[in-house]
Amino acid sequence: MTQTSRPSGNKAVLLLSCPDRVGLVARIAHFIYERGGNILDLDEHVDVGDGHFFLRVSWSLDHFSIPVTDLEAAFAPMAREFGALWKIRLSGRRERMAIFVSKYDHCLREILWRHRLGEFGIDIPMIVSNHPDLAPLADEYGIPYHVVPVTRETRHDAEARQIELCEAEGIDTIVLARYMQVLSPEFTARYPSRIINIHHSFLPAFIGGNPYRQAYERGVKLIGATSHYVTDELDEGPIIEQDIIRISHRDTLEDLVRKGRDLERLVLARGIRLHSEHRILVNGRKTVIFD
Amino acid sequence: MTQTSRPSGNKAVLLLSCPDRVGLVARIAHFIYERGGNILDLDEHVDVGDGHFFLRVSWSLDHFSIPVTDLEAAFAPMAREFGALWKIRLSGRRERMAIFVSKYDHCLREILWRHRLGEFGIDIPMIVSNHPDLAPLADEYGIPYHVVPVTRETRHDAEARQIELCEAEGIDTIVLARYMQVLSPEFTARYPSRIINIHHSFLPAFIGGNPYRQAYERGVKLIGATSHYVTDELDEGPIIEQDIIRISHRDTLEDLVRKGRDLERLVLARGIRLHSEHRILVNGRKTVIFD
Amino acid sequence: MTQTSRPSGNKAVLLLSCPDRVGLVARIAHFIYERGGNILDLDEHVDVGDGHFFLRVSWSLDHFSIPVTDLEAAFAPMAREFGALWKIRLSGRRERMAIFVSKYDHCLREILWRHRLGEFGIDIPMIVSNHPDLAPLADEYGIPYHVVPVTRETRHDAEARQIELCEAEGIDTIVLARYMQVLSPEFTARYPSRIINIHHSFLPAFIGGNPYRQAYERGVKLIGATSHYVTDELDEGPIIEQDIIRISHRDTLEDLVRKGRDLERLVLARGIRLHSEHRILVNGRKTVIFD
Amino acid sequence: MTQTSRPSGNKAVLLLSCPDRVGLVARIAHFIYERGGNILDLDEHVDVGDGHFFLRVSWSLDHFSIPVTDLEAAFAPMAREFGALWKIRLSGRRERMAIFVSKYDHCLREILWRHRLGEFGIDIPMIVSNHPDLAPLADEYGIPYHVVPVTRETRHDAEARQIELCEAEGIDTIVLARYMQVLSPEFTARYPSRIINIHHSFLPAFIGGNPYRQAYERGVKLIGATSHYVTDELDEGPIIEQDIIRISHRDTLEDLVRKGRDLERLVLARGIRLHSEHRILVNGRKTVIFD
Repeated sequence: MTQTSRPSGNKAVLLLSCPDRVGLVARIAHFIYERGGNILDLDEHVDVGDGHFFLRVSWSLDHFSIPVTDLEAAFAPMAREFGALWKIRLSGRRERMAIFVSKYDHCLREILWRHRLGEFGIDIPMIVSNHPDLAPLADEYGIPYHVVPVTRETRHDAEARQIELCEAEGIDTIVLARYMQVLSPEFTARYPSRIINIHHSFLPAFIGGNPYRQAYERGVKLIGATSHYVTDELDEGPIIEQDIIRISHRDTLEDLVRKGRDLERLVLARGIRLHSEHRILVNGRKTVIFD
Repeated sequence: MTQTSRPSGNKAVLLLSCPDRVGLVARIAHFIYERGGNILDLDEHVDVGDGHFFLRVSWSLDHFSIPVTDLEAAFAPMAREFGALWKIRLSGRRERMAIFVSKYDHCLREILWRHRLGEFGIDIPMIVSNHPDLAPLADEYGIPYHVVPVTRETRHDAEARQIELCEAEGIDTIVLARYMQVLSPEFTARYPSRIINIHHSFLPAFIGGNPYRQAYERGVKLIGATSHYVTDELDEGPIIEQDIIRISHRDTLEDLVRKGRDLERLVLARGIRLHSEHRILVNGRKTVIFD
Repeated sequence: MTQTSRPSGNKAVLLLSCPDRVGLVARIAHFIYERGGNILDLDEHVDVGDGHFFLRVSWSLDHFSIPVTDLEAAFAPMAREFGALWKIRLSGRRERMAIFVSKYDHCLREILWRHRLGEFGIDIPMIVSNHPDLAPLADEYGIPYHVVPVTRETRHDAEARQIELCEAEGIDTIVLARYMQVLSPEFTARYPSRIINIHHSFLPAFIGGNPYRQAYERGVKLIGATSHYVTDELDEGPIIEQDIIRISHRDTLEDLVRKGRDLERLVLARGIRLHSEHRILVNGRKTVIFD
Repeated sequence: MTQTSRPSGNKAVLLLSCPDRVGLVARIAHFIYERGGNILDLDEHVDVGDGHFFLRVSWSLDHFSIPVTDLEAAFAPMAREFGALWKIRLSGRRERMAIFVSKYDHCLREILWRHRLGEFGIDIPMIVSNHPDLAPLADEYGIPYHVVPVTRETRHDAEARQIELCEAEGIDTIVLARYMQVLSPEFTARYPSRIINIHHSFLPAFIGGNPYRQAYERGVKLIGATSHYVTDELDEGPIIEQDIIRISHRDTLEDLVRKGRDLERLVLARGIRLHSEHRILVNGRKTVIFD
């Protein structure tokens, strides 16, 4: 009976969205209760614009009266009645994430360090890069590092190889930790709301390349970073988390890059954490974050 | 079916705390559902330390099957079973707040301006001050302004007069908007978790008098403000909201006072808003804020 | 001998920019020193990109050996030698600002309240609006309020009238306090770096109309406000100050507007303060802020 | 001719404080100018309370007319005349810092990573710990790691050993990166304004042990971190930098520790950077930060 964000005991999390109607919370809470589940955390949201309902509920399975293997089958009829999109995640089953990187080490280093501290509660079975540079860092954490070179000409084959690797490892989610290649629509379509990118600006400002240079030349007084899901529109995917830091005329472009690194690390880490705890529901171009 | 913070239609809000146990959310949600209430917003929290449960749920009364006048009687048995502290507030019934001020106008001005904009959804039937200075501001908003002078010798009589005024107006909550007098334990005991104060530091730093001078002399790089409920321990009551602003060695004591005014206004206004929307539950020395 | 931002005694402020070269600081400091001026505050900046030099220096005139009326003539030769753009402001001479507003009162209210508190050290000889609505607020502060209606057809004549009013009052700077009309290039050209606007987004995000709606629809997690000088490119002028506030999926469009009001007030007030204290130098599309 | 914070060419930095008087800036700027130095950055501050003057000026030595070895002797007479405390640092001479740690790795890891990126421009000739745990991390960066166990009984001998190590390495500054031992007054007196500590609260709140637990129990809505110089009064030394992060009732004590780690890393790194660039002057219990 704790709302702590750390996994505690055996529990289930239901993420659900459907058209709003009377009694959704009560009926779902009752479904859990009558099977001996104890609700640990329940949060819901209704989009006033389109009257869509979003729910996250987690409950303890300690005295649950049906086998978890039967849980989805038991819930399916009600979900059908509601016309809901839904998924149930069990605490025993950790999210499997692949990290894609290029040459910058700061985001990867941050993720691996937090991972070892147990901040995420995920598995990281592999790291994929288009460069060999960060292999030693992967070794330090004992994680397989696959080099898949990418050029404009070879992108299609490279992505085929990346997908092959992801499927071999049963990857749920891909984290682009300053991965400097644009993924094809075919690739992104395979992982809807399952590819997390860090963009080094407060989107939608400074979309595309060299956002720090764009910010420097525009003379903004704040720079930012944004973690978001990747869609086939560059930097247009649903935003998960954003933060900013103050700069001044004294800051050179190099200072922006340096200060921005700190933001990128934090904002990507927060995004990974929210995703790994199943706290994010996508609502069209937006996210609902049950934090 | 909206969780928007603006009052919308006829609705009820239940605030409840009790020892945690299985099924609390389900049974309370069911109580509302079986009477035709539609849950607009439900949030709950369990204190992992002492296993205490806290709930805020609001629901639409549009198709409610029992008269609201019978609502408390209908809920009482379940609350007794849970051993709960609870209250139900109806949207029709606006919180009645008295503002206590001395000579500084910035917090009062902010509250009255937001009040007129409808940010709070409260009634402000009167303003009480130990000085006549701000009467014109009260007049501008057409709110009765009562001058109750206070000296160490007359404090007891002054408080008797203040209580008389509050009772005559059916005041629920008292807001100390930079009111420079300390209230007696007898007075504060009459309004448990119903007196909101703004303290111009990030408590617990700089308790007591002249916090800006204390901050200036300590050489901190941040100054803050804290809105909190008043208890009989000076500046020790449950904290509702805090915020800070960055300062530097260039800031004089006068600069700290100037910058702090902006913080005080915002932090007090946020506290009033949270209280007026019944989003605060007190948990010993702490608050649970269902924002 | 204090850098406090409050006007203190009789002083002069020099703002200067020129191509960088050896000895600029020493020779300007010496110019002041040898005339008995005591430097209160000196700050300088070199743009590493184009090697341009920017200086702000203020000094006490208490024992200045030449009449202030001769000051500009005395400094002119050195400025010519440096190929500098420069201006000297005397503390006796307060900046004269006109406030342009439409119907929203929050920015105007904030400016007038701070003005009365002496936060700016400026004169506000008039308020100009295309609507009569805020006249009572102007009256409350005893400031003339001129209604100049504007339609697409009458814009040219309206601007002619506005300019007439500004010239009659010897206006140095125009503050657009949520003034909802776009000024013509002819108008803005008359007041280079002398028109301050508040835009309710963190520029360059959400340029143009309805930035809160744009932000709401994009699903950002932060909203911002930007005070900037007006040029003939809409929302592209040099940025003076920016700040942001965190929002969530729970915030409706109305909540964004409400939260944004607090940002707009603060960010515009900071911009006015920096301008009134002659702390801003324009560097192409950017500003140098000597804060 | 750049104020960028990166080391650029051969330059000197003068830090000076003295009683305020007329002409200080002009005469010091002239001293540099007449010897062919080009001022890159000049910042000054006067404490209005006690009329004390603080200056930081850096200049290029590229065309300096006297040998840097004669610089201090050349400046000494003027400094004597001003009654100044002063030091001159040459860019060729990097600050030598020793890192003291115990078992927590996050601050050390952050410092070493930034150090390798060249963010500090310092030398780190050794790491000292009262535990062997972090030796592998030191090895990874090729920095000698000395284990000096400390108990209440052995503290005196341990400190003697630590001093011996510092003197052998010509250490200028000691960074306490979550070093969990209190240093004796004798030790701190040896390194005045040359020991930097990170305290995991926004001082002066939560002085002493377990600040996160203190914060958790008090129910604050913000937690902070503070980097400061160490004096013989625990947590009372001059504050260099502070920052905060928002928390809620949902955060457990473990969440506070986790979120606080991010603050500690950033706030300590900023303090080290400011110190390594000679941007800090101590003013009694306060600091003057020329950022």
